[in-house]
Parts: sequence; structure tokens; C-alpha cells
Amino acid sequence: MVSGVLRISEDLEPALVGVDVRESGANAVIAARELSRSFAESALVRDAVGRDPVEELAALRAAGLLRLAQQQRLSSGSVTWRRVLEIVRIIARGDCSIAHLLGYHYVIGETIWLLGTAEQAAALASAAVDEDWYWAAIDNPVDPDLVLRAAADGFVVSGRKTFATGARLADHVIVTGKLNGVAVTAAVPGDRAGLVANDDWDNIGQRATASGSAELHDLPVAVDEILGKFPPRDQPPTAQAGLVAPFTQLVLVNVLLGAAEGALADALEYTRAITRPWQSSGVATAVEDPYILELCGQLTAELRASVALAEQAAVDLQGAVDEGSELTHESRGEAAVAIYAAKTHSTRVALEVTSRVFELMGARATARRYGFDRRWRDVRTLTLHDPVAYKAREVGEYVLTGAVPSISPYS
Amino acid sequence: MVSGVLRISEDLEPALVGVDVRESGANAVIAARELSRSFAESALVRDAVGRDPVEELAALRAAGLLRLAQQQRLSSGSVTWRRVLEIVRIIARGDCSIAHLLGYHYVIGETIWLLGTAEQAAALASAAVDEDWYWAAIDNPVDPDLVLRAAADGFVVSGRKTFATGARLADHVIVTGKLNGVAVTAAVPGDRAGLVANDDWDNIGQRATASGSAELHDLPVAVDEILGKFPPRDQPPTAQAGLVAPFTQLVLVNVLLGAAEGALADALEYTRAITRPWQSSGVATAVEDPYILELCGQLTAELRASVALAEQAAVDLQGAVDEGSELTHESRGEAAVAIYAAKTHSTRVALEVTSRVFELMGARATARRYGFDRRWRDVRTLTLHDPVAYKAREVGEYVLTGAVPSISPYS
Amino acid sequence: MVSGVLRISEDLEPALVGVDVRESGANAVIAARELSRSFAESALVRDAVGRDPVEELAALRAAGLLRLAQQQRLSSGSVTWRRVLEIVRIIARGDCSIAHLLGYHYVIGETIWLLGTAEQAAALASAAVDEDWYWAAIDNPVDPDLVLRAAADGFVVSGRKTFATGARLADHVIVTGKLNGVAVTAAVPGDRAGLVANDDWDNIGQRATASGSAELHDLPVAVDEILGKFPPRDQPPTAQAGLVAPFTQLVLVNVLLGAAEGALADALEYTRAITRPWQSSGVATAVEDPYILELCGQLTAELRASVALAEQAAVDLQGAVDEGSELTHESRGEAAVAIYAAKTHSTRVALEVTSRVFELMGARATARRYGFDRRWRDVRTLTLHDPVAYKAREVGEYVLTGAVPSISPYS
Amino acid sequence: MVSGVLRISEDLEPALVGVDVRESGANAVIAARELSRSFAESALVRDAVGRDPVEELAALRAAGLLRLAQQQRLSSGSVTWRRVLEIVRIIARGDCSIAHLLGYHYVIGETIWLLGTAEQAAALASAAVDEDWYWAAIDNPVDPDLVLRAAADGFVVSGRKTFATGARLADHVIVTGKLNGVAVTAAVPGDRAGLVANDDWDNIGQRATASGSAELHDLPVAVDEILGKFPPRDQPPTAQAGLVAPFTQLVLVNVLLGAAEGALADALEYTRAITRPWQSSGVATAVEDPYILELCGQLTAELRASVALAEQAAVDLQGAVDEGSELTHESRGEAAVAIYAAKTHSTRVALEVTSRVFELMGARATARRYGFDRRWRDVRTLTLHDPVAYKAREVGEYVLTGAVPSISPYS
Repeated sequence: MVSGVLRISEDLEPALVGVDVRESGANAVIAARELSRSFAESALVRDAVGRDPVEELAALRAAGLLRLAQQQRLSSGSVTWRRVLEIVRIIARGDCSIAHLLGYHYVIGETIWLLGTAEQAAALASAAVDEDWYWAAIDNPVDPDLVLRAAADGFVVSGRKTFATGARLADHVIVTGKLNGVAVTAAVPGDRAGLVANDDWDNIGQRATASGSAELHDLPVAVDEILGKFPPRDQPPTAQAGLVAPFTQLVLVNVLLGAAEGALADALEYTRAITRPWQSSGVATAVEDPYILELCGQLTAELRASVALAEQAAVDLQGAVDEGSELTHESRGEAAVAIYAAKTHSTRVALEVTSRVFELMGARATARRYGFDRRWRDVRTLTLHDPVAYKAREVGEYVLTGAVPSISPYS
Repeated sequence: MVSGVLRISEDLEPALVGVDVRESGANAVIAARELSRSFAESALVRDAVGRDPVEELAALRAAGLLRLAQQQRLSSGSVTWRRVLEIVRIIARGDCSIAHLLGYHYVIGETIWLLGTAEQAAALASAAVDEDWYWAAIDNPVDPDLVLRAAADGFVVSGRKTFATGARLADHVIVTGKLNGVAVTAAVPGDRAGLVANDDWDNIGQRATASGSAELHDLPVAVDEILGKFPPRDQPPTAQAGLVAPFTQLVLVNVLLGAAEGALADALEYTRAITRPWQSSGVATAVEDPYILELCGQLTAELRASVALAEQAAVDLQGAVDEGSELTHESRGEAAVAIYAAKTHSTRVALEVTSRVFELMGARATARRYGFDRRWRDVRTLTLHDPVAYKAREVGEYVLTGAVPSISPYS
Repeated sequence: MVSGVLRISEDLEPALVGVDVRESGANAVIAARELSRSFAESALVRDAVGRDPVEELAALRAAGLLRLAQQQRLSSGSVTWRRVLEIVRIIARGDCSIAHLLGYHYVIGETIWLLGTAEQAAALASAAVDEDWYWAAIDNPVDPDLVLRAAADGFVVSGRKTFATGARLADHVIVTGKLNGVAVTAAVPGDRAGLVANDDWDNIGQRATASGSAELHDLPVAVDEILGKFPPRDQPPTAQAGLVAPFTQLVLVNVLLGAAEGALADALEYTRAITRPWQSSGVATAVEDPYILELCGQLTAELRASVALAEQAAVDLQGAVDEGSELTHESRGEAAVAIYAAKTHSTRVALEVTSRVFELMGARATARRYGFDRRWRDVRTLTLHDPVAYKAREVGEYVLTGAVPSISPYS
Repeated sequence: MVSGVLRISEDLEPALVGVDVRESGANAVIAARELSRSFAESALVRDAVGRDPVEELAALRAAGLLRLAQQQRLSSGSVTWRRVLEIVRIIARGDCSIAHLLGYHYVIGETIWLLGTAEQAAALASAAVDEDWYWAAIDNPVDPDLVLRAAADGFVVSGRKTFATGARLADHVIVTGKLNGVAVTAAVPGDRAGLVANDDWDNIGQRATASGSAELHDLPVAVDEILGKFPPRDQPPTAQAGLVAPFTQLVLVNVLLGAAEGALADALEYTRAITRPWQSSGVATAVEDPYILELCGQLTAELRASVALAEQAAVDLQGAVDEGSELTHESRGEAAVAIYAAKTHSTRVALEVTSRVFELMGARATARRYGFDRRWRDVRTLTLHDPVAYKAREVGEYVLTGAVPSISPYS
């Protein structure tokens, strides 16, 4: 029986051997690896029925992974994003729906620092750590804007978003809408009356992301729940606020790469244990087949290169985040370009790896009980989040003309 | 609602406008197109539960498509294989499981002419046409050989094959085993006691092919049911007998290409009707997006090239079949090389097209109700039938050294 | 010593074995093959210094290949373009500069039928056949228009074109300019005073195409040398006139494919004769190396598919040409789309084949005495004639929306 | 006039802005960039005639770049290889022949530490620094072994090597041969009588590498010029000695990547300054063309990923070198695998980038005066040094089975 990720650590993580277990007050990476293996065991069940990963979020919480970033921020002033994004990638090896949920959670947690006042951010972060919140957002930019109207004790928000990943599971949500035509973002409890997150996500991949629609029926919002100075002004976003979109994109990059790493690790294990040598190969075992060896090496090289690029982008993002309100639009743009280069690359590589690993394993690996198609379905779904050609275009525009990507919900 | 193949004829078949409706006593191509559209409507249901396409085989029979090849053979002495293989491709546009079943049926029907005596072939073909048989085979070469032992009125066969596509549905089956160590093939009714075809095929693709295991428990076989002269001699296969494997491969090629054509046609329809222009594209409709247009053109060019190559291979196969017992090993080998070049090419193209069409359609096309992932799952499953690297190798060996592929179950 | 194309016929042309040697009153294909081999022997010398292929055009003339198409047209009313384009491809195997010159010659010869009156065309064609003209054109659309002004006995034309392939070598040229703002094309002798074709083409590939600039200094043009009815009217081009651009593109496609065929044939010969097995390959000869065999098979499959697509496009073009003045814009457009699909495909394949064949041969094949880089330089140069992305776009637009490419100098 | 690399620093090196100019007692990186620009100016002249870069080596010497690594080693005990390899890459942007020569020089300088006794290495390194030697090697493993025979004052070496990069230019050379069947390496002055390095390298790329043949006619070698303990023992190489081959491979990787970076930088500059918008693009400048922008982004992403992977491999190599004689075969193997993954990846990327940049620039960029084909010719030549399929195979074997590459001249 192939259990999926038993050898992932040996196969893919030699560089992590020296992880400092005292980091962040807890051994987050080791915890993430263990959870990732555990999630891999149950991923097929969630995939089959699109089940919300309620117990799995509880396990992430119990391991301290939900509060990880906010805790770092509160204790040291900054978060080691390269490590946090690596944790997202590790979780994605086991189940990339859960990694998607966790990664968004981290970005949304950071959003309160990027958009809120220092006091708001600190208060929300403290509460988030104390109560170990899981965060989600209701802000899909493709749908019509949510609208805030004045009400007795502040405002009420109404409207509908087709997709709101994780909203059904969230302890706290951020909600983005328009107040007198000006964009505002508020943070409210996930169980507040007026907020309905539906169980209507039924897509071919990322099936356990609880990405269904959300409806807001006069959801009350207090003035001090609106992030940033009040009243809001209708002005271009700051460079700092403009980090939300590239940050989100880098989460997606790491989810894709984790999915590919998991697919390759599973395939290696299967090929060693189960694949039989081809009849005309002239070799005694599949792991001696010249074509299996070559393909395995090619996929490994592609995947490692893409991970190396994503890690560089994380370093660039870190630099931009650490600039705080001093961040320039030029620096934000350069970090965004690094991230979009990684997006362009990881999209191609994750699709290739999750599809071609079958060629290592052979025909019998298509048995449904292995569920090896789920990685491709997950990757194919997630890579369509926004069209990658436009990300390549933005990278190209920067290197050709020096123009950085405009701030937008996807850039 | 996108119905899948409504516009396939307009999109993909201009060259067929002039089909002669009197050909073969029936308008086979037009019938195939209609059935293909109908099969597309119900394909997702079969895919969901892996249901055997019993009604669909009945529809093929009613349209005269089961008896098509044998009827041509009996009436004119030869079959127009390019047209027959095109019918397989047309059916694959709608449901490539059914095309797989139909294509194997045609090859197995031809096998009685390649392996049997002229009398056996004529008698079996006449019965097949009269009773409109659906043929399958129990001969998976990867499993241990079936064994024939002498019994009261001839022989009994015993053994097990892991996969026996269509055997559960067959009116007549051919069974390949060893008699005193010599390979023999027999043709027997599908409902004969001793033959058990199980419903245990549960793979990620080609889910309606009824490709489960088959068990033979002392299945009786009469002497005259064994194809060819009796007693059989232990000698190398003739070039004519050596056509079975390349013939089967060319069926698979056409199933793959039909799947890709269906995927592209569906994507075109969806993109026209549903896809919205990307926010930063600067165009008013998706069909004006420069990247959608370019990708659409690239996939079209790749697919058309692959179909052109497959059609050339069909012409080469036709030539080899028409040589009959005069066929040389050199000529068989050249036809096989043409087919394996097409296999090499169509494998790459079908995987690329069925995966990348999502980039034309965008994120919402991943909703499960469209089921657009089934084509990739079908193609990914079928392309692993045997490792394509070895087919490329055989092509390369021929052009480099002039050596034709050795006759084997896969070559 | 590797002579380049000695085995091309065995490697690449099995399908041509049955060529009818009486066709066109001469065995054009066999003549083309012989000339191609001969041109291959001397190609490196022309490549080194960019020498005009004067003797080679004389050899084409002596073999009857210059007059081939016009002779067919005059004797039978139509030309077998698939065969003529095949001849271009065959010549390109040996030297794709010369194939470029020959292909343009054929298109320009056909242009007199597409643009001229029946009388003009017949008279020019008869003279062309009788005197065995080599044709060129001075019409590069990227440069400013040439201008015709009224003069004593008709008009004089002035202006400059940066590139005018073959003009230095031409017996007769067509010249495209503007007369009172209306586009006109005239056919005049190549040695007429006022026409200067310079020897200033010095590019990395297609070095023997004599593609330098041309200057017209009050070149006299008589009224009856202007093709079509006089005075010309400023109206949209007819569908028939709109065939010139796709026709030219299909010539380029065949030159690219011939270059790739020649590169592969040379590489096969070299690999058989010279390449040594790699030290860790475990095989005794290079032609047993698993990676060489696989790559060889892959390149063969890609190239055969691209040739099959180009041949289909030739059939479509033939159909359109044969419609004559009855040709509709829709039919012209469909032929153009078939040709642009072939352009898209052959561009990718020719670049890949001419670069990757080195991997079959190994390091020593980079010795300059073999000159194996010339194919890639030729292909890289020719594939930039116009940007291929726009050809893919036109194919995509057609299959997505049904809109055919607009008539233009490149479409 | 396009000068080639004027904007390379802006385009490609943002990460280097903070280079510490006091590092290594000299600003090596800044010096390398200046020299690279200068070498780019004259590269076409060397390429045209295959001229030895005598003045350029002198310039490297004058800038302190020849002695850089040995100086670090002598002063601090270790060399920062990631930085040294980066210098090789920077030089390759301007002229990858010179980078090849410089990179080999660094590896050969390191070889004396890997093979020699501590005393030999220190003495040779001191002399090398004092006299600013340029090093080369005569050791091509594909040719028959050189043979040492006993002579009056030690030994004499005889034999011939087909290729000996840089030997014509070297102040000191290492010579590898067999003494009584045991492999030995000696270091001798480049001008010693008996050593003849010929000017017979004439290949399509890397034309200024002085890679011609070398002949040894009873070249005298003293006992203490033989590296390592004497007499040599016939035993398997140590892990440390086994670093020479992967080290050499990583030099080649950086030369390839530098060539690609230079090609892209040139193309960006040309596209900005010269390329005209395509007639049907609907945009006013080439840098707004959607396809140019997308391709530019794709190539940038691919190239950055490959550089990131190469830099990781440099870190791994550094770790292995720093282990000194404690290095295990397992650790050597893992560093080698990291390097061969980078080799596999950079081979593909460098070929793609140097060929496809023309699609950014358009047809007129094929003019010979720009010489933009030289990068592809250089890369195509250098990527054939040893067949990349076997490098992919070694990577695949490691991740599949844990077996590290065997020590050999190429692994």
C-alpha cells in the first residue's frame, strides 16, 4: 500500500535538516511535516466528497501553526515570511486545499498590518493569537462590490461574492466593500448574524477549500472595525497596501510547488515499490529504466529550479514588507515582479510535474484508489486563479520598460 | 448550459462535408457524428459512476457501426480503414471510453482475418454481421498466460487476466493462451459458462470501458474454434499476424486525438459563450484577448498536425493490410513505424490540449458540472497503455539503422 | 567525410518511390533531388561568403524546374501546387537559400495570373517559358511605397526597398508601387536601366538569397506592363489577388521544413558514421544509445507531422487557386488559415529540429568544416520574416469566431 | 549602434547593488562587469576569426581576477566559490569564450589543492599569485591516455589530446597521464620544451577558447611536479579528488547562464531601441506588443529560475569543498547531483533563450553586423561538452534510488 508521502522528507528536504527547533518558540517546520503526512493520508476522502477540513484546521491550530505569523510579529516585530511560505509549501505536499486555506489565512492576518492602524493591527493580532483565530476574506474582486450603508451603530454591508475561500470555517473575516464609493475593509467575527457562507463549491480541484459563495445580508459593521483611519479617503493605495496582491500570489506559488513536490514524492515511492520494468527495457527493475531515470531527473531539475525562484521571491517580499510604510512603489513593484516571475514559472512546472509523474509510474498508477490525479486537478484549478499570460506580460514589461505592475486586486 | 459538442462539426470537420452517404450501404460518418454528440451528453454520468455503456453499444449496433468493417470486408474484400478509424475518432470526441470499445471491436474483428483460415474468418464474419456481434478480447500480455488443456470435446482454458476491456459486454470474445507451450487464439461466445468478466475496473479515466479482470474456469474450447491451422505450430508470427499490435496502437492514437478534438471543441464553445475578458486585457470580449487567440491557434495547429500524421499512418496501415499474406516484414515494419510516430506525437499533443484548453476558458470552467477534466483523465490513462518512450525509440531505431520493430504484443 | 545529403532519399522519401517520371514532360522530382544533393555539396561555400547562386539557378533552369509551373499552367490550365511545393522542400534540404529563391519565383510567376488580365498572363507566361526566366519581386511592404509618375511613354517608378530577394538575379521582375495613390504592379525586364539591385544582404542566414536592397531611379514602365485592367481602380483586393500572401507563406513553410529534413538527414548520416557511444552508456555504438534513439524518434515524429500538415495546406491552397475568379473570400480565408496553422507549426518544429540534431551527433559535430549550424541560422532568419504569434492569432481567431484573416501583404 | 551590454547591470543585476567593494581586497565583481562590457565590444571580432584572447587575459590579470581565488585561499583558507562562479557568469555575458577560459583556470587552480599535498598546493598557489599565472589543463579524457616513462631526471610524458582548452595561452598547465598504469597529474610550466599546443580549434562556437589539440613529445616532468604523494598508488579517487568533475560542470553551467543573460540583455536593448511594432499589432511601439511582452516575461522567468538553481548548487559545492579531506562520498555525490540538476536545467534554458530572443527583436536583428547568433552557437557548442541526458539520468538515479554519481571524468 502506497501511503503517499512517507518518504517526502528524505526525498525533498535535505536542506531542512538543520532547522532550529526553538525557532518561533516551536518547531513549526517539523510540525508542518508531520501534519502534511497526516493530511495526505486523508486527502482522498476530502477530495472525493469535497469535505471541509474542519479537523485539519483544528490540528494546525493545535500545532501552533495558525498563530505562528502573528505571534512572530507581536514578539519580534517581523515575520520570517520565507519560513512561513515554506510551511505553506510543506502542507501543500500533503493536501493543497489545506495549504491554500492556511496560506490565505497568513496573508489575511498580514493584511490587518498593511491596511489597519498600528493600534487596530496590534489589538486584532493579540486577539487572534489568544483565541487562535482562523482568518478568511470576503473580497472576490471579480464580483460586484459589496456595499456599506450607514445604520444605527455604524454600518451594514450587503451583497454577494461567488467565491469566498474558507469563509465557512473562519473565526474572523475581513470584508471588502464600498462606502460612499470608497473602498474599505473591515474585520468582523465569522459568526456574526448577516453573514452566510454557502457550501456550494464543487469544482474539479482544490475541493476541500470551502471556496463557496458568501452572502451578506445587512451585516453590521462598527466604525472601529473598519481598518485604517476613519473616514476613509478615496486615494490611490499606498505601496504597502499594494503588497496584498503579490503576497497572495506568492502563497499560490507555494501551494502549486508543494503540490508538485508531493506528486513527485508519491511517484518516486510508487516507482520504487510497485512499477515493473517494461518488457522491452532489458532491465530488471523499473528504477534502472533509462527513460524513467531521465524523466525523473528532468522533473527534479525543473521543480528545484522553480522552488529556488520562489524562495528568492520570498526574500524580495520580505524586504518589501520590512520597509513598512517607507516602502516605495518601485520597491513594491520589484518584489511583485519577482513573485510574478515565480508565478509564471511555477504554473508551467506544476502542471508538467503533476501530469508527467504518471509516466514514471506506469498504467496501473491510474487506479482510483491511489488518487494520483488529484494533484493535477488541484493544480489545474489553482493555476486558473488569474490568467498567467498577464503575469508573464507584467514581468516582461518591467524588464523591457522599467514599468512596475499597477496595483490591482491581482497585481 | 454548455452541452459539449454542439458545434464540433462546424469547428473540426469541414473536410468531411462531402462524405458520400451511400458508402458502405449507410452514412456511417454522419451516424457517428450524431451518436458522438449524444454520447457527449451522457458521458459525465458514465464517468461519475464508471457505468458500462450498454445502451450506447446498442445505439452503435442500431446505426450499423458494429458490423461496418466486417460488412465491407465480406462485400468488397477490403475495409476502408482510414474511414473506420475516423469513425473511432469521431466517437471519441463525445466519449472516448466508447471509442476505445468500438476501436478494439474493429481490431478484434480484423484479427480473425489475420489469424484464422479463410474459412474460419468468413464464417465468423458472416455470423458477426448477421447477429451484429460486439467483440472483445481476453489476452492482456502482461499477465501470466492462459493455459489450454485437453478435455473431452477439445480443450478447456483456465487462468486470469487483470484487464479485459469490454469482455463484460461482448457477444463474442477471442481468448489467447498456450496449448502445450504454443500460442493459440480461439473465438468463443461471450456468454459461455466458465468465462467470468468482473466489474472491477475503477481507474481515473476511460471509466466506461468495462476494462475489469476476466477469469477463465475450464472454459471449453472446440478444436475448430482455435484460429488458424490445427494443430498450431510453434513458429514466429507472420508479418500479417504482426499487424495486430500496430493496428491496436492506431486505434489508441485515434481515441486520443478524438478526445483532444472534443476537448478543444468544448473549450471553443465555452470561451465564446461564457468566458469573460480579463480585467487588464483592454478588450471587450474573451474572443478578442490576444493570449486566448494565440493559444487557440497554437493548439489548433498542433492538433491538426497530429491528425494529419495519424491519417497518413492509416493510409500506410491500409497498404499493409491489403497486402494480405504477401505482406513482408519490412512493409509491416514501415507501417508500424508510421503508426508509432503518430503514437509518439498524439500522446504529447493530446496531453497538452486536454490540459491547456482550460487556459482558454478560465477559472470558472473548473466547475464540476462541466466535467472538463474527464478528457485529461481519459487521455492520461490511455497514454500509459504502454510507455511512449519505447515507441519513440522504435521510430528512432528505424530511421537510424533501418531496423523495423520486432513483432510483440505492443509492437 | 560527411557530404550532407547522400542518404536523404532513403531516409525521408519512401513515399516518393512511385513518382511518375513522365509528369510535366520531365521528371521534376527526381531532378530536384539530384540538384538538391549537388547544392548541399557547395552550400557551405555560398554560406561562408554569401555568394549569389548564379550557377545553381542555371542548373535549375537546365533541369526545367524554372519553367515547370508556367509550363503546366499553359498546357493543362492548372499547376499541381502540392508537387511544386514539394520540389521547393526538396531543394531546401540541400540549400534553403536556393529553395527560397525558387519558391518565390513560383509565387511571382503565379502572381501574373492572379493580378494580370488573361492576355497579359498568357503572354508573360509564354515568354517566361520560352526564355526560361527567373522571376523576382520588388515589393517589400514594410518600406515606403514606390511611386509611379507619368512620363513620355507611360510612367517612371522611383523609390527604394530595403530587401528584394533575388532581384539581382532576375530576368524579369514585378514591381509594386502607387500610381496616384492606387496600388499597381508591373512586370518589367530585370536588366532595364533605372533598376539597381545591390549586393548588400549580409545576414546570419539565408545568405545566398541575394536579398539586398533595390533602388528604382525613374525606371520606365509602359502602360501595358501594368498588370490588370488600366487605369487601375482603388478597390479592395479580390479573393484571388488575396492568395498571394498565403501562397508566399506556404513557400516559406516548405523551405523551413526542407531545411529541417536536411538537418535531420545529415545528422542521421553523421550519427551512424561518426558518433561514438558515450562512455557511461553501456552500449557499443551510438545508434544503440537509448537517448539518441528516443530523440531521433521524437524529432522524426514532429517533422513528419509538420510535413503532413503542410501537405494538407497545399491541397487547400490548390483548391482555392483552382477556383480562379470564382474564389470567395471565405474560401480564400480557410486556405489561408490552413497555411498559417502550418506556418505556426513548422516554425516551432524547424527551430527545434535544426538545434537539437546536434544532440544526436555530439560535440565533434560542431567543427566548422561540417557547417551544421547553417540550417539553424537559415531557419532562425527565415522564421522571422513576419512574427509567428500573429499567424497563430489568425488561426485562433478563425476557429473561435469564424473570422478569416484580412487580406494584407503578410496575410 | 547597439553595443551589446550597455544596460546589463540595470537589467540583470539589481541584487548586486550592495556588493562590498573591499571584498577580497579588490572590487572583483565591479571589475568583472566592466571587463565584460569591454569584452562584448570586441567579441564579434574574435568570433569572426577565432582569435586567441591574449589581451583579454591580460586585462583579467591586470584587474586581479586571475589570482582572485588563490589569493583568497592563501589569505583566508577558503574561496567564496559562489562569488567566483558569479564572476565567471558575468564575464560570460560579454564573451563566453573568455568566461570558459577563466572558469577552467579557477577549477584547475583548485585542482592543485584537491590532488596535491598541502605543501605542493601552497607552493604552487604562492607562485601562481606572485606571477599571476593563467592555468590550463591537458587531460581530455576521451582521447587515449598520455603516458609517463622514467627518464634521467624523473619522467617524460608523451601523447596527444584532441582538445586542450587554453593550453596555448597558459603560464602553467596540469597534465594528466598514466605512470605504470596508474593515473597521475603533474603541474609544469606552459612553455616547457616538449609541449606543443596547436592552433587548430575551428568550431561553430566558443571560438576564442583556444581549444585546439596539444601534443607532448617527451615532455620532462620532475618527481616533485607530480601532484600528491609519490609514488602514486592505484586506488579509487577520494571524494575530494572527485570534486573536480562536478566543479568543472558548474563552471560550464555559469558560462551557459551568462551567455543567456547576455543574449537577453542585448535583445532587450535592441527591442527598446530599434524594433518596430508589427503592422497588425495595433500598438505604437514594440515594447507594447502583447506577444513581445509575454515572451520577454517567460524568458526572464526561465532564466532567473535557472540562475537561482545554479546559485544553490554553488552553495552546495562550497559546503563540499570546505569539508576538505573529511568530505564523504555521499556529500560529494549530493553536491554533484545539485550541480547536474543545474546542468540539466541550464542546458535547456540557455538554448531556448539564445534562440528565442530573436523573436523579441524581429527580422532585422539577423543582420550579421549585430552578431546575435554567436550566443546560440556558443551555447550549442558548449552544451555538447558531454550529453545532458546522462546528467538528468544521474539526478534521477539519485532521487529514485539514493545512489550518487560514480566518480568519473564527467561526473
